[in-house]
Amino acid sequence: MNVDICFSPALYKSYSLDQNEHIVVVVDIFRATTTICTAFKNGVGNIIPVATLEEAKEYKQKGFLVGAERNVKQCDFADFGNSPFQYTPDKVKGREIVLTTTNCTHAIDVAQDASTLIIGSFLNISAVAAYCADSVKDVLIVCAGWNDRFNMEDTLFGGALAYILQKRGYYATSDAIRVSLAMWQEAQLNVADYLKNSEHIKRLEANGLNDSVEYCLTQDITDIVPIYSKLSRSLSAQ
Amino acid sequence: MNVDICFSPALYKSYSLDQNEHIVVVVDIFRATTTICTAFKNGVGNIIPVATLEEAKEYKQKGFLVGAERNVKQCDFADFGNSPFQYTPDKVKGREIVLTTTNCTHAIDVAQDASTLIIGSFLNISAVAAYCADSVKDVLIVCAGWNDRFNMEDTLFGGALAYILQKRGYYATSDAIRVSLAMWQEAQLNVADYLKNSEHIKRLEANGLNDSVEYCLTQDITDIVPIYSKLSRSLSAQ
Repeated sequence: MNVDICFSPALYKSYSLDQNEHIVVVVDIFRATTTICTAFKNGVGNIIPVATLEEAKEYKQKGFLVGAERNVKQCDFADFGNSPFQYTPDKVKGREIVLTTTNCTHAIDVAQDASTLIIGSFLNISAVAAYCADSVKDVLIVCAGWNDRFNMEDTLFGGALAYILQKRGYYATSDAIRVSLAMWQEAQLNVADYLKNSEHIKRLEANGLNDSVEYCLTQDITDIVPIYSKLSRSLSAQ
Repeated sequence: MNVDICFSPALYKSYSLDQNEHIVVVVDIFRATTTICTAFKNGVGNIIPVATLEEAKEYKQKGFLVGAERNVKQCDFADFGNSPFQYTPDKVKGREIVLTTTNCTHAIDVAQDASTLIIGSFLNISAVAAYCADSVKDVLIVCAGWNDRFNMEDTLFGGALAYILQKRGYYATSDAIRVSLAMWQEAQLNVADYLKNSEHIKRLEANGLNDSVEYCLTQDITDIVPIYSKLSRSLSAQ
């Protein structure tokens, strides 16, 4: 099997023809996929990702709980922003939550044609690796990035996941995944230090929203793998 | 001033709003921008880059010399393929040549709105750096990539160019350019060895077209900077 990485939702279509039988792992370390994994750890029933604010507002008017973020900030109309710490058990347990974020829900939107689409973060990385390896399918990691641009933290997750999958017999041969692996090998002993000057950490700091950075880089807090259903257009726990 | 890098033509539009006053440096190390720089070193008058085979064939029918490559191979109807060694002084001196390649002319096409668009390769890297630094403008390196995917060799060139520009006072702060710089710092002592397992070198080897790899990685063979004119839609020597 093969593991590869797509650095931006805008590049997905250059990979999509190959993806009939692939598992797509969508990642947005700061902070949406970390937040999604946290919500499932805290018992959320399911999460409906939507790409646009308009859709999110429509759901809000229908009475749904809604998480909505643009440019790191919580939208006025929403119940939650994009901080994992907001999605506490008392607020989310057994609930259905609609979520729209700047980059992650866009990535899910462009990759929704994948035969299998799952959500990865450092919080569930070993569970994601086990799910992929047990499936015996090729894996494509799709980075949410930032406004379609490359970012370090999603790429590092890709390198970390490929590092585990290589031990399970996966090949990692593309230029993109080899660079991701090299980055992970350099960063793994101190990921927070490696990322300290990265664009999105600076963006979070500038908005006083960097309280969850250390948490977002913590491995294996949960073994839940959120899976996207094309039928219900929602994420549920594996 | 700032230097940044766009890993694929498909990502260009996420940068293009900022580019009014930028210099765009298009790079396709294996082999199109190396070939373009070689042709100018060997005295070509100007080069008309076209994105499609149809345009190239029309020019051929009008009597133009045409270079045309798809998937590393020379097209049947063309006078040249994409090997720099084909563009010898006896064939190109003073001539006007039409060129279409799998990735490079597509990159030129998507970035043609830039206020200044120049061609970079290791062959003219110091001249490109000097041109940029003397202009006192921000620089965006646009990698031709491979079918819109990331590649190592164009990224390494970006890291090498940023490394020089940092010494001339440029900032290199985006995640993408910082990764490119880190790659260059690791690779610079033996670039051929760093790239030996890269996707495009394998692709060239599989087609018996890897004879120019060492040449493509040679620095500062020429001080010519090919510049794109929006008016004439062609490249000429600076």
